[in-house]
Amino acid sequence: MSSSTVTTDTPASPTWQEIAARKSAALLASIPKEWIIPEDKKPPASQDNVTGWPRESGWFTEEELAITESSATELVSKLATGALKSLDVTKAFCKRACAAQQLINCLTETCFDRALETAAARDEHFARTGKPVGPLHGLPMSLKDNFHLTGLDATVGFSSHVGDPASYDATLAAMLQDAGAVFYVKTNISTAMMIAESVNNVFGRTVNPLNRQLTSGGSSGGEAALIAFRGSPLGIGTDIGGSLRIPAACTGLFTLRSSFGRFPTLGCRSGLPGQEAVRSINGPLAATLDDIILEAKTIVDAQPWLHDSRMVPLPWREVTLPPKLKVAVMWDDGVVLPTPPVTRALRQVVDKMQATGRYEIVDWDPKDQLQGIKLLGRMFVADGGKAIKKELARTGEPMRPEMNLYDAATELGTYDMWMLHVERDAFVKQYLDRWNEAGIDAILCPTTPYSTTKNGQFRYVGYTGVYNVLDCSCVSFPSGIHVDQDIDLPLVAGEGYTPRSDTCKATHQEYDHAAVHGIPISLQLVTRRLEEEKVLAMTKQILSLL
Amino acid sequence: MSSSTVTTDTPASPTWQEIAARKSAALLASIPKEWIIPEDKKPPASQDNVTGWPRESGWFTEEELAITESSATELVSKLATGALKSLDVTKAFCKRACAAQQLINCLTETCFDRALETAAARDEHFARTGKPVGPLHGLPMSLKDNFHLTGLDATVGFSSHVGDPASYDATLAAMLQDAGAVFYVKTNISTAMMIAESVNNVFGRTVNPLNRQLTSGGSSGGEAALIAFRGSPLGIGTDIGGSLRIPAACTGLFTLRSSFGRFPTLGCRSGLPGQEAVRSINGPLAATLDDIILEAKTIVDAQPWLHDSRMVPLPWREVTLPPKLKVAVMWDDGVVLPTPPVTRALRQVVDKMQATGRYEIVDWDPKDQLQGIKLLGRMFVADGGKAIKKELARTGEPMRPEMNLYDAATELGTYDMWMLHVERDAFVKQYLDRWNEAGIDAILCPTTPYSTTKNGQFRYVGYTGVYNVLDCSCVSFPSGIHVDQDIDLPLVAGEGYTPRSDTCKATHQEYDHAAVHGIPISLQLVTRRLEEEKVLAMTKQILSLL
Repeated sequence: MSSSTVTTDTPASPTWQEIAARKSAALLASIPKEWIIPEDKKPPASQDNVTGWPRESGWFTEEELAITESSATELVSKLATGALKSLDVTKAFCKRACAAQQLINCLTETCFDRALETAAARDEHFARTGKPVGPLHGLPMSLKDNFHLTGLDATVGFSSHVGDPASYDATLAAMLQDAGAVFYVKTNISTAMMIAESVNNVFGRTVNPLNRQLTSGGSSGGEAALIAFRGSPLGIGTDIGGSLRIPAACTGLFTLRSSFGRFPTLGCRSGLPGQEAVRSINGPLAATLDDIILEAKTIVDAQPWLHDSRMVPLPWREVTLPPKLKVAVMWDDGVVLPTPPVTRALRQVVDKMQATGRYEIVDWDPKDQLQGIKLLGRMFVADGGKAIKKELARTGEPMRPEMNLYDAATELGTYDMWMLHVERDAFVKQYLDRWNEAGIDAILCPTTPYSTTKNGQFRYVGYTGVYNVLDCSCVSFPSGIHVDQDIDLPLVAGEGYTPRSDTCKATHQEYDHAAVHGIPISLQLVTRRLEEEKVLAMTKQILSLL
Repeated sequence: MSSSTVTTDTPASPTWQEIAARKSAALLASIPKEWIIPEDKKPPASQDNVTGWPRESGWFTEEELAITESSATELVSKLATGALKSLDVTKAFCKRACAAQQLINCLTETCFDRALETAAARDEHFARTGKPVGPLHGLPMSLKDNFHLTGLDATVGFSSHVGDPASYDATLAAMLQDAGAVFYVKTNISTAMMIAESVNNVFGRTVNPLNRQLTSGGSSGGEAALIAFRGSPLGIGTDIGGSLRIPAACTGLFTLRSSFGRFPTLGCRSGLPGQEAVRSINGPLAATLDDIILEAKTIVDAQPWLHDSRMVPLPWREVTLPPKLKVAVMWDDGVVLPTPPVTRALRQVVDKMQATGRYEIVDWDPKDQLQGIKLLGRMFVADGGKAIKKELARTGEPMRPEMNLYDAATELGTYDMWMLHVERDAFVKQYLDRWNEAGIDAILCPTTPYSTTKNGQFRYVGYTGVYNVLDCSCVSFPSGIHVDQDIDLPLVAGEGYTPRSDTCKATHQEYDHAAVHGIPISLQLVTRRLEEEKVLAMTKQILSLL
């Protein structure tokens, strides 16, 4: 037997392209026929904003529209009294999520059978006992791809993870389900969740339902796109450098980036397994702040520390805000000046806050920001990109161009990694000392320099990433202000604008006021570590002014 | 000018031996003449137990003896009412600490001038306001060597750190001082705080005041020896593998190894800077449980999270224990069977608990212990011993033989370090799952396999170290039972005793019932992570039975 015979006998391993194509085909095939958009109902490919399409198309019943356009808080209040049935609510969101997939490519996995069974069981429970199973009774919830759910892949965009279904539910997923949630889809991400848009070699790119030419951000951009399309009332993503806040900002949603220790991360797939110099956290994405609070309080009330011992046994703390709050505003981080609409939104919100007399507003000197964002980058690539390269090598998948930082990285030895921890701790202390000296309650700043960007142009995560290094509690919230192409004209270098960096220069060169016209602008409120309740309460107070 | 001329002109760097000799001489020279024990008062070198010597010697006044033999709790209650003056209390402890240094070699630094000035300021404050400055008003407190205090070295046993005085106080020290504490001495450790006895090449070996042939344990063994001698009412040490609990057990004291996040560690020197796969924590050592609670509550009440943002904003939680508690007993960790007196003490305590009907007692299967202790060892040497070797190389100081693990270690790359984190997290989850299945409140087990050992024979830290990996809240408490050479006879291999490991074999071969006769035996109570208040409350309840 010659060696060539052996070669012929051995079936060739599929290429990464074949794996990806099969996986995407399987995803499409998992959509039941009745939820495939009829050809005559489809919006034209040239239609950028598809958020109005469900109502305009006539393909949804009034009931389906009413359900899917309700907030999670409204839905659970009706589900808990029997005014809505979980099965009806679940079917409506399944259908709308399927539409979303066909229009903005935001899903990675579906589990409609599980969803309908769970929903039926919720209704049966309610019929039998007259009571909801928990605060999320019967509510459909979407999960970012990296949450393990039994029987589903969690590829995090790697072809190497295709066909490796989980044998358990992630700890947070199990807790949400215990509280009544119904899972039906998982959502698209960037490769290893380490790009600020949602694009990978398996599922391709998720686009923004507000404008399909634009990005929904990343890495939780599948979640954000789905929720902005109202294909989900409430979803869970992750954030290690802005992966919740960036997509929330790009799509006009709310999110909470908690400090590590409030919401279990056990049983989720990490993009950089074992990396913990900066911790990834799990958090909610939704269209209203109340929905964020609903999710957060539900989990904390369920004592997550009993299920994931890295969580902190902090009960939910109702916050009474003092009559006067001191807020530092960071207008510009000194690395990338925000684009004009973001600065305008920040100015307007600060003016409204100031007008109430309830806030003492000071400026925050951004002198530490560059050091913080550089530290974050060094932590991400401390393994020389080995974790990512190993996954890619398993199928011969190429490194995406957005990830060239990982390609170029050199692995640190553990001793140098320890020294990086020392440097980070000194940075954290320096920032805390300034925070204490200033005596502030919070920092208010842009979530990103952008409203959003054209697909492929999201360049800078410094406004979010520094607060991951510091492990602060952060909310990203829509300011109520939208880009106005007539007002938010580009800045011209040399004419009152001096680029702070090459990235700043590119950001302002690429800023296209016409392209982002109408996009909502979000801001970020940042408090000390483990002050989730406070940052939510402060955001609520600020929202009441907008 | 020839190169040899240059060589001649350059003063030779001192050898590590010279550095160490000068440092020890300076320490001795820092003791005022009136606190040098007169020759005719000294106990003979052959006197093993020196704890009774202060009273027997006639060198201390009745007032000095009364003060130094009071608990911290008794002292602060009298200091807070003006019944005692801080200056008197401080002088008495300074004197007794100086005596301790001369008899058991437990100090590394003194700051008597600072102490007397602080104490005088406390008295002045009280005279002026009629009020204490805080819960520790005027109380002398000792600190482990690695706590930075302005103007003092923190060598952690390395000759390379001699002559590098700190320019600030460690965060926890500053908080204790704000609460009223008076600092006067720092205490001996092992090199890098990574040996379970207290011995290093700069200050030599601390011995146990209960029996100078025996070790006071490590690495906080200077603290434990000083407190057991009553040269300090309350001290602070650190624990990364047992460094508080082991010395507490060796000397019959109480300690709390909190989970990471309750007591600030900023501004302390680490033995392995930047290592955080397992976290070192700071905690109190004292002769009574109430003193431990006094210190712990004082710090938590002062909101340490505002000063060290890695701390958790958990207020002090008063605990009401349920009428019935479920406690798992680990008699033997399967790696090193405890020596006979330890097993006897555990048996007696369990019998007393069972007799009350208030405890459901079950056995804890030790099947995970070996994996846990191996993980701990791998984390400690993940840098290939580089951090320690670099310090030693600066002065040519040799590696101590107790640390050959570090000498032999190979550095991991960051990727492999991340994989070790993944392995650790899986271990923690596996242990938590078993904890949840068993439905237990706590594990009761030996603190160490020993009462204590002869100097140089402390071989095994597995009973403590696994709970560092798990970051559990632990108390080590004296059982009230002492070694009895007539009862606690050695086990003989083959006669009902099968060694679990080579270390087990050596432990039982070296066990000398006559040598440890009369030594108190301690046990360890372990609760979930961040349950400091609960483990203290449970210990208090158990103590009431003893």
